[in-house]
Amino acid sequence: MFTEYFLMSLEDIKKYVSKQIKGYENIDNLACTEIGDGNLNYVFRVVNNSTNQSVIVKQAGPQARISDSFLLSTDRNRIETEVLILEAEKTPDLVPVVYLYDEIMNCCIMEDLKDFQIMRKELIAGKKFLFFADQISTFMAENLMRTTDFILNPKEKKNYQKQFINPELCEITEELVFTEPFIDFKNQNILTPGNEEWIEKEFYEDEELHFKVAQLKQQFLTQGQALLHGDLHTGSIFINEKSIKVIDPEFAFYGPIGYDAGNIIANLTFAWSRFAVLRDDSFTDWAENTIRNTIQLFREKSLKILAESKEPFAKYETVLVTFVDKIIKDSISFAGLELSRRIIGLAKVADITTIEEIDHRIMAERLCLSIAKKCITDKEIIDIDHYLGLIREVKRELLLNGISNN
Amino acid sequence: MFTEYFLMSLEDIKKYVSKQIKGYENIDNLACTEIGDGNLNYVFRVVNNSTNQSVIVKQAGPQARISDSFLLSTDRNRIETEVLILEAEKTPDLVPVVYLYDEIMNCCIMEDLKDFQIMRKELIAGKKFLFFADQISTFMAENLMRTTDFILNPKEKKNYQKQFINPELCEITEELVFTEPFIDFKNQNILTPGNEEWIEKEFYEDEELHFKVAQLKQQFLTQGQALLHGDLHTGSIFINEKSIKVIDPEFAFYGPIGYDAGNIIANLTFAWSRFAVLRDDSFTDWAENTIRNTIQLFREKSLKILAESKEPFAKYETVLVTFVDKIIKDSISFAGLELSRRIIGLAKVADITTIEEIDHRIMAERLCLSIAKKCITDKEIIDIDHYLGLIREVKRELLLNGISNN
Repeated sequence: MFTEYFLMSLEDIKKYVSKQIKGYENIDNLACTEIGDGNLNYVFRVVNNSTNQSVIVKQAGPQARISDSFLLSTDRNRIETEVLILEAEKTPDLVPVVYLYDEIMNCCIMEDLKDFQIMRKELIAGKKFLFFADQISTFMAENLMRTTDFILNPKEKKNYQKQFINPELCEITEELVFTEPFIDFKNQNILTPGNEEWIEKEFYEDEELHFKVAQLKQQFLTQGQALLHGDLHTGSIFINEKSIKVIDPEFAFYGPIGYDAGNIIANLTFAWSRFAVLRDDSFTDWAENTIRNTIQLFREKSLKILAESKEPFAKYETVLVTFVDKIIKDSISFAGLELSRRIIGLAKVADITTIEEIDHRIMAERLCLSIAKKCITDKEIIDIDHYLGLIREVKRELLLNGISNN
Repeated sequence: MFTEYFLMSLEDIKKYVSKQIKGYENIDNLACTEIGDGNLNYVFRVVNNSTNQSVIVKQAGPQARISDSFLLSTDRNRIETEVLILEAEKTPDLVPVVYLYDEIMNCCIMEDLKDFQIMRKELIAGKKFLFFADQISTFMAENLMRTTDFILNPKEKKNYQKQFINPELCEITEELVFTEPFIDFKNQNILTPGNEEWIEKEFYEDEELHFKVAQLKQQFLTQGQALLHGDLHTGSIFINEKSIKVIDPEFAFYGPIGYDAGNIIANLTFAWSRFAVLRDDSFTDWAENTIRNTIQLFREKSLKILAESKEPFAKYETVLVTFVDKIIKDSISFAGLELSRRIIGLAKVADITTIEEIDHRIMAERLCLSIAKKCITDKEIIDIDHYLGLIREVKRELLLNGISNN
């Protein structure tokens, strides 16, 4: 309806929604509030007071300071919306509905997930979700396996790969996840006092670790296996008593599948670590079971989807099993990277930062980082039972003996 | 100069060149002949009789039967020209100069390599080229390593990757190289009588071989390491007494570096195999030395280029050495695929097909295929000395004992 971009006011948003969305025609019934934390994106909720229905409008900020940066922003929003639409074809119940994407206004109108909460917050509050493993494994298997070369025909796959080349957001990951936590080259790591010396020795000075990280970074840079979510942590998942909705796929690109699965493993491990130091066995038991079930179900569902493949060599079960099991091995390595960067790097997770007692916080960090190093460097940890064995072993060891800097 | 595409006649071509290229203005001095074998592309030589200079005009045929097929053709020519221009920035002496690319006319004007011959023909005639290893290793190291993530910045790399997404031509390779030779699913393999039974047993029925091929196919489909030539065989190389010119990069895309290097190894091995059965030790010695020198020089030059990397982890020599040595290992595996598909599949090589004596031809094929299987399945053959050991061993064995079908 608008022919030129501008940043919409609350009144503009009401007018916009009334023109674009059925059931919102009467502008006098609409109420609009800004609910985002408004850095790059502005997020508005528009409620129709006569029906009590609501939608979300997400508009990219102008960022007109330099034109490059504006282009970045536009493309990020395009990618997010186009991925949500593709995911809705495969897992309609697990993503918000996109009602409209407007290339000119650089905004989209989508389902209001007002009955959902951010999963990370819920985990921090100690809530457990028995259905999570089943739903997230479906989300991953469906969206990841169905965008591989096993399922898409060669032209479709390459067209998606081209559509989702995402240089700007990949570069953020390449730096924040795959580089900075290990060498702090931009001096922007933030180490918790009490863990500094140990991190400097165990992370900044370990060349064997750096070598493995360099190889994982090459894999991330070069391996276009499937259309990833690209930022699949518990802050990108809305949840309630019945189901999840996965949001914010702005980091999406064709990458190594294990990166998404690894982020789920690592972020469940942050919550596990919080409750491990608080000695809440009921939560840690749930977290461990959920990590195992997520990966086991992901494996089963993936193999079932891959069995539909028209790739001639897919007739050999060993080809498919090797493919999926290598992804699971990768996911453990990538989990090690996420575990590292969220403790050492700029972007911390509230699961750890909101632990009140400093000794507990130091211990929780040490748990995550000890697990992280093993995930990255230990070749023997290749399946999810090895991973669970590892985290229990590290927990027993650290909680029994306390931390040391040697 | 033309605003709408049409297929140019000899007179149109003269007019076109006279308007576009300096030194060709006087149309009365120009002579034009079609020199291509004219399937999809029409290739014209335009000579200025007053200066004796000449240029080549390459125009894509209309293929207007179905529109998809026309789009394929257009993009293939765009990719070829754009890659030649990029290669000319890095290795100006080793590629033909592109004078003009015309998106509307779907044609380009380029340097006439009239003083050069197709290398495969020269090899078949038994000619040896002492400078070849040096020049082709420069071509590979410069064009491959300088398009990796080690050298390009993240945005440049991804923009090139997007620019050279090449679904149609990759699909040809995926089928002809990575699938058909091993399972003949389209019934278009052509087996030389005398080798049929053995190939059926050793290639069509060997599940272990299929498993390895499936993994190499996944690598080809997913690993975007560098901008490959994509079809780097001795028929894509012009040569004379002093230098080479690498042509026809229409298969270019971001793929695994070992694929290009492997094609060089395999195609030198075809010529080697021809002269092995003809018992010409002088040629086979040159070929073996050239294979070794090509890969050793490629390794050295690659490491030197990678030492310029601004990637933080590139400060570790072990990261770079591991990267290059893995590429060399890959190249041997990919050489096995090229060796297989050129003997078993549709696209034969004249090095073998022009061997007059049928027994010699069968033997040469058997040499190539025995080497191929080992390259694909034997994990121990990881460097070029192993490869040379292998081909000498296979040669000694087969020439001594003769072929058998067991």
